[in-house]
Amino acid sequence: MNEQHRTIVVTKNTGEKDVFDAEKLKTALRRSGATEAEVDLVEQEVLDNLYNGITTKKIYRLAYNLLRTKSKRTAGRYRLKSAVMNLGPSGYPFEKFLGRLFKNRGYNVTVNEIIKGKCVTHETDVVANNGTEQIMVECKFHSSIAQKSDVKVPLYIQSRFLDIKAVWEQQPELKNVRFVGMVATNTRFTEDAKDFARCVGLKVISWDYPAGNSLREWIDESGFYPITALQSLRKKDKELLLENNLVLCRELEPHRQKLRELNFSESTIKKILNEAAHLIS
Amino acid sequence: MNEQHRTIVVTKNTGEKDVFDAEKLKTALRRSGATEAEVDLVEQEVLDNLYNGITTKKIYRLAYNLLRTKSKRTAGRYRLKSAVMNLGPSGYPFEKFLGRLFKNRGYNVTVNEIIKGKCVTHETDVVANNGTEQIMVECKFHSSIAQKSDVKVPLYIQSRFLDIKAVWEQQPELKNVRFVGMVATNTRFTEDAKDFARCVGLKVISWDYPAGNSLREWIDESGFYPITALQSLRKKDKELLLENNLVLCRELEPHRQKLRELNFSESTIKKILNEAAHLIS
Repeated sequence: MNEQHRTIVVTKNTGEKDVFDAEKLKTALRRSGATEAEVDLVEQEVLDNLYNGITTKKIYRLAYNLLRTKSKRTAGRYRLKSAVMNLGPSGYPFEKFLGRLFKNRGYNVTVNEIIKGKCVTHETDVVANNGTEQIMVECKFHSSIAQKSDVKVPLYIQSRFLDIKAVWEQQPELKNVRFVGMVATNTRFTEDAKDFARCVGLKVISWDYPAGNSLREWIDESGFYPITALQSLRKKDKELLLENNLVLCRELEPHRQKLRELNFSESTIKKILNEAAHLIS
Repeated sequence: MNEQHRTIVVTKNTGEKDVFDAEKLKTALRRSGATEAEVDLVEQEVLDNLYNGITTKKIYRLAYNLLRTKSKRTAGRYRLKSAVMNLGPSGYPFEKFLGRLFKNRGYNVTVNEIIKGKCVTHETDVVANNGTEQIMVECKFHSSIAQKSDVKVPLYIQSRFLDIKAVWEQQPELKNVRFVGMVATNTRFTEDAKDFARCVGLKVISWDYPAGNSLREWIDESGFYPITALQSLRKKDKELLLENNLVLCRELEPHRQKLRELNFSESTIKKILNEAAHLIS
């Protein structure tokens, strides 16, 4: 049976074809905290339902639906990527989310600030400072997983960074601070976008790049799950919370009163907080 | 009567409102080579047909239609801006047209070349060299007159230029050559786009910027009218000619045989060449 599945062709989100790889599925499941028994169960379910041309999205749904009956927490983590995608359609919630991740790493953070450069003023997404380095982070949020940030993105961000850095370098209070430019995306960069960034010293972080320090790993390490990971929230309500600066699951419990002010019923609040608690535990 | 017209509000292509200014109309007409008698005639026709909220496009058409009955050449020059807009929808014909303008100014020109930069390779639009300077020109063609190139355009082009320049500087045969980066658009730049370019030394040229050296003035000075200025050509035929590297009205007569090969009838060829001759005379 396994022999047969080696030749199953799957359709990726980008439209590209690939050969089904059970190991990739199992890695993703383990990464989400599934037990080996759960991993085996989901793998079997998926194997039983494979057919040539199946989309990876369909495989993902199969796995997710089964996982959900076993552990809400594991399922929540497994669907983290979708949760980050659902921070859209505008880029603002993603910027706020990135800001939270930097704060968690010990940085003082400002989000969405207008900064004077040497030549022109710029709307920056995140500026993070930890005393030794000050990072200008430009966020590129894409609503479609297939959309990549191409080389034009690091090209224009490098110019923006140099323009801002020229001013920072004149500020006495930043005398011993190192300045860093960075681009963060929720999807991917093209190869030449990464090449250019590496070459000029601009940092890039995407969903799974760089290995060991990718956005996925930042999120895992922080345990910061965006509220979009919650099944018990309707799309409209997610938007309402994001607008009100409630970005992380862990921010809900301390803001129970805020939820009341936003007209959530006591039973809904209980349900939401219950799911959030499972996810962040 | 003139008093009354001072308060006529016109709607510009950008959607902005402005007060009708007869002087602007007359300047545009004179610039196209209209005689003072023609200028007066057209002005009167337009004044007679003004109403509050009239679009500048409508005024332009009124003027153009009348002008056409007087002088095909003047009318052709008057509609130059539309002719350049009609080089689209893709940007390639605009790049070729820009290449012709640089050649006319004594530059050796390559259009659409892949060039290795220090960090990555780039698809350049026009590279022009006259022995003392080598210019990398990036073309931004917009199909809508209302679309402006914003600051991101010079930001990314500046990085691209620096990346390419780093390689040019290593080439012994370019030892005494000055390197210049440039952005050309058929519409306009935002103010901060121009500010940034000026500040970093990137040249910008747009339809009416910089004064005295704008794209309109380059075209006027060269007498290089794109084939899209010809009334006697259908849209489909214009595209066919552009694809076959026939970009300028003046290139048609020397390529009469090419027109035959493209299956234009003798009578059509005669009509086209006749109109082209009027325009470039």
